[in-house]
Amino acid sequence: MALTDLILQNVSTHIRLEDEEKDIFLSMLKQQKVKRKQHLLREGEICRVSSFVLSGCLRGYTVDADGTEHVLNFAGPNWWIADMYSLLSQKPGVLNIEALEEAEILTLSKTDQERLYKEVPHFERFFRIITENSLVSYQQRLLDNLSLTAEERYSSFCKRYPNLVNELPARQIAAYIGVTPEFFSKMKHHLLLMLLDELCSGYLLNEEHVDEA
Amino acid sequence: MALTDLILQNVSTHIRLEDEEKDIFLSMLKQQKVKRKQHLLREGEICRVSSFVLSGCLRGYTVDADGTEHVLNFAGPNWWIADMYSLLSQKPGVLNIEALEEAEILTLSKTDQERLYKEVPHFERFFRIITENSLVSYQQRLLDNLSLTAEERYSSFCKRYPNLVNELPARQIAAYIGVTPEFFSKMKHHLLLMLLDELCSGYLLNEEHVDEA
Repeated sequence: MALTDLILQNVSTHIRLEDEEKDIFLSMLKQQKVKRKQHLLREGEICRVSSFVLSGCLRGYTVDADGTEHVLNFAGPNWWIADMYSLLSQKPGVLNIEALEEAEILTLSKTDQERLYKEVPHFERFFRIITENSLVSYQQRLLDNLSLTAEERYSSFCKRYPNLVNELPARQIAAYIGVTPEFFSKMKHHLLLMLLDELCSGYLLNEEHVDEA
Repeated sequence: MALTDLILQNVSTHIRLEDEEKDIFLSMLKQQKVKRKQHLLREGEICRVSSFVLSGCLRGYTVDADGTEHVLNFAGPNWWIADMYSLLSQKPGVLNIEALEEAEILTLSKTDQERLYKEVPHFERFFRIITENSLVSYQQRLLDNLSLTAEERYSSFCKRYPNLVNELPARQIAAYIGVTPEFFSKMKHHLLLMLLDELCSGYLLNEEHVDEA
């Protein structure tokens, strides 16, 4: 599969494009390889592109006054990532965007994105829909942060990023759900014990059931 | 000013409409009066409309397993409000939407909104832009919740809703920044003391300055 096929598939889930429109869109994209730990953006810089991930995994994060990192989002293959505040306002942003592993991305500059809306207005619809979906997931995460325990937030994280759960370092997940790596480690240990406990009771119940039969 | 002028002003900040397009849009809106404490939507219901506030103030909130309320958003005049997850998916939502005071709103049904995109495609752009702005503010609030103290979150709230700070009951603001009403009351008292302290030092400094002059 050509690398551009992934992004065309992504787009085609929401809008149908003529071949000529696809060509205009593809001509605006720049392919880029990103090394592990390489930053696409640092706090204080102006975000000038949206990045679409072809392979690998990126994260958007901030660092607070105490030096603690907070992960706003992860972006694996087929996801878009940018500092939206900075991209829209063209003012210095608060986000750092870093590759967690070697990655390959396609970037669309803000200037080209604005040109795209003029030349292929369907893209208004595409970006409206993906922004709406993104909004829903941030609203959900905010409510999770306000009302759920760390264990429940971890469960939400697993649902949101099923493909990344086993790929990401534990401390990145801890920084996403808002706990220290130490607390996260204890929490996973506790969840594992609960799971074992549940499995054992299930096993005993089944045994009893066999005896009764 | 006609009630519909407010919404046309809201729209005209992002797109320019012909008179005929304005008429199509306005014909889709339904005006509704909402009493204080009246719910437009309850958890578990399907959200079928976006509401634009003409006067008064609404809030979107959830209630957790302990019965604690968490405020997702407030909407004063010139703001839109909906359970976005439910509106987009047409599945039962998690949000309650309630009027905090007598309010007047215009509603746009999901069906009409879809029709609007077809008949006046400019509205793709309008809703893309307001969704992007909304996304930025939820990302910011999420980062605030992950990294800021309650006092700093209160300061962010004041910046986001300058017109509502003195209008809203304290317990609603507490449920928004994620603290108990008791903690919020102590916190405001503490902030007031700090402010007084600052004002007094300023006064003393000025006095010294006068003596020196």
